[in-house]
Amino acid sequence: MRAEIIAIGSELLTPSRLDTNSLFITRQLNDLGLMVARKSIVGDRAEDIRDVLASALPRSEVVILIGGLGPTNDDMTREVVADALGRRLVLDEGILENLQRRYAQARLQMTVNNRRQARVIEGAEILENPNGTAPGQFLRENSTLVFLLPGPPRELQPMVMNQVLPLIRRHKPTSVQHRRQLKVASEVESRVDALIESIYKSYPQVETTILASPAIIELFFYWRGEPDDALAETQLDELAERVRARLGDSVFTDREETLEEMLGHLLVARGKTIATAESCTGGTIGKILTDVAGSSRYYVGGVVCYSNPLKIQLVGVNETTLERFGAVSEPVARQMALGIRMRTGSDFGLSLTGIAGPEGGTPEKPVGLVFVGLADAQGTRVQKLQLRGDREAIRLRAARMALDWLRRELAAGAGDVK
Amino acid sequence: MRAEIIAIGSELLTPSRLDTNSLFITRQLNDLGLMVARKSIVGDRAEDIRDVLASALPRSEVVILIGGLGPTNDDMTREVVADALGRRLVLDEGILENLQRRYAQARLQMTVNNRRQARVIEGAEILENPNGTAPGQFLRENSTLVFLLPGPPRELQPMVMNQVLPLIRRHKPTSVQHRRQLKVASEVESRVDALIESIYKSYPQVETTILASPAIIELFFYWRGEPDDALAETQLDELAERVRARLGDSVFTDREETLEEMLGHLLVARGKTIATAESCTGGTIGKILTDVAGSSRYYVGGVVCYSNPLKIQLVGVNETTLERFGAVSEPVARQMALGIRMRTGSDFGLSLTGIAGPEGGTPEKPVGLVFVGLADAQGTRVQKLQLRGDREAIRLRAARMALDWLRRELAAGAGDVK
Repeated sequence: MRAEIIAIGSELLTPSRLDTNSLFITRQLNDLGLMVARKSIVGDRAEDIRDVLASALPRSEVVILIGGLGPTNDDMTREVVADALGRRLVLDEGILENLQRRYAQARLQMTVNNRRQARVIEGAEILENPNGTAPGQFLRENSTLVFLLPGPPRELQPMVMNQVLPLIRRHKPTSVQHRRQLKVASEVESRVDALIESIYKSYPQVETTILASPAIIELFFYWRGEPDDALAETQLDELAERVRARLGDSVFTDREETLEEMLGHLLVARGKTIATAESCTGGTIGKILTDVAGSSRYYVGGVVCYSNPLKIQLVGVNETTLERFGAVSEPVARQMALGIRMRTGSDFGLSLTGIAGPEGGTPEKPVGLVFVGLADAQGTRVQKLQLRGDREAIRLRAARMALDWLRRELAAGAGDVK
Repeated sequence: MRAEIIAIGSELLTPSRLDTNSLFITRQLNDLGLMVARKSIVGDRAEDIRDVLASALPRSEVVILIGGLGPTNDDMTREVVADALGRRLVLDEGILENLQRRYAQARLQMTVNNRRQARVIEGAEILENPNGTAPGQFLRENSTLVFLLPGPPRELQPMVMNQVLPLIRRHKPTSVQHRRQLKVASEVESRVDALIESIYKSYPQVETTILASPAIIELFFYWRGEPDDALAETQLDELAERVRARLGDSVFTDREETLEEMLGHLLVARGKTIATAESCTGGTIGKILTDVAGSSRYYVGGVVCYSNPLKIQLVGVNETTLERFGAVSEPVARQMALGIRMRTGSDFGLSLTGIAGPEGGTPEKPVGLVFVGLADAQGTRVQKLQLRGDREAIRLRAARMALDWLRRELAAGAGDVK
């Protein structure tokens, strides 16, 4: 079973853009037992789109075209696919009304170009797009399933999950893919790999993939062996269990949830609240916490004390401490955590101060030095971290490691009255 | 002048790996005036490699194949290219000796498979690889230049710079690439396109690309006409000028800089400081401001008042106002902006309160309703926004529009003592 992905957009042929949608889609297709055999990236040029589609159709059972469904002139996927398949485009009144409503709500003038988004290829099913104006389309050409999807990931991803996968499952019954997933926080890829390599190498029928981002590592175990459901499940369970045991509490979930969602569940379950005092991360911890809908149940807010005066005025850091130890120091992190907890009356106070770079480092306090403070009813403790990477990586890694510390402390019972 | 990149390797078709070599190569080729017209990613499968090469040759002047030159069985680029072109493979004694020396130095046994790396396609030039065992190859097929390069970036990159680019320059004298870029804030793609469509369509020798993300739209204008440097520059200047005039102050730069960098330049130039009070964005504005190294020169910090008590305690919002108008209201945004400016002593106070969703909307205050407040020495004003999209898009759009408002006000002289 071959699938093929065609990403459309001249911006994907510039030095600064990559097609990343195909990673998400590949993961989902693999779960259905479908392998991606080819990816093609073409610009907004009718001839190239037509040509790559024509060669993909006879050799693949699923072809997914991404992008070029927007309202502008260089969005031409609908027209080119219709042309390549010798089908007409039909104006869909339902989509048009929906578009008109959306534009009216947004108080925008609807142009002739906008109306093109309401055109559907003859014989195609409409794939609803709750997060954007461009609906997707699904059609069958001989035995090949063809999908047209919009490019923005937040539009594409729910459409893949809710519409594309069920359609593929219905039209191309495949065998279940057996897999396990573990997410690991506050670790580095090479150390994780060194720890677990001997374990996963003893399962030759399992393919192990390690996906690393700052402070978060995802492990995937795919069954590639004989089609024996029971054997696959038993071996994957055993492998995942052994890896978990080796990595300890740095594994935070075996499900599709983020670290901040997991932390939110723990805080809600314990009925605890948290406040933050951030210096070098400038609001990143608050941003990540509030990425989760409903986070107001446990996150009260906090202070971004990017300057020393704000550390003093808004969090209550002692001026003498600042002068004596500097803003990036263990005592200041301690006072920030304690201060934000006291001033907000929250159960936990989480603080972070560090040197994100690229400037500002010294031999004693190099770029990447970060202090994280955590205050609760039992007291205040501080962690010292020395992180690698550029400014962006250091900030993201620091924010995630601070949140992960609270996650581990909560899992271990911190904040409970003793 | 079309170039095409073919990345070879089954690992590039998994959910965790992307071909990133093509970004580096694209940048270098663009500097030579060569556009990448297509990228293809195929696995270690002879049929797919042969097929994609055969279709690339007649339509492109430069074809670069990456990967599949290593010593293992699934490395088959050399063999497949030779076969596709109907040429023989010849063992090169020089490469073989070099390989034998390297393997001996590394105290490794040289296998039959390793010897395959010494085979050269008939008529090809050898491209030396100082950082690895697999040399590259260069050959001409009709008028197309074909390069075979190894996949590891630290091997590929110096080979591109020192060998591939000089060869292309020698065989395909090209002109400089002419282009312009404009970045637009606080607009939506369809409206921008409607506004400027009639302008860019009157330049048939220019290719226009529109790239949209929440509240930021990038416009690219590439010269695709006759190789006349003066004409290209004149027309691009004229086009960019007309587009700027049409879009007004929503165009914030014509360079490779972000909105927050541009805002930072303005604040530094004016010697002004800013503080923030964020509710529904939870720290996003602070995070974006501090993405810029050196932002401590103008950003003092602020408050994330995600709960009502923090709005009262840390920013000084009036409790009665909160009760009477609700947290998401014009008066609360006003008090937040004024309050954070007063408490921090900064020149500007920027506030944001809204409903990011997906829950929490009402008929009077729907999801996407956002109030932005801006306080300076002249007073405080509030903007009401109604934004579309999911939680993530609403928050990012709101944060960027708040920053862009300050950028426009600064450009118009706000904050200056009158």
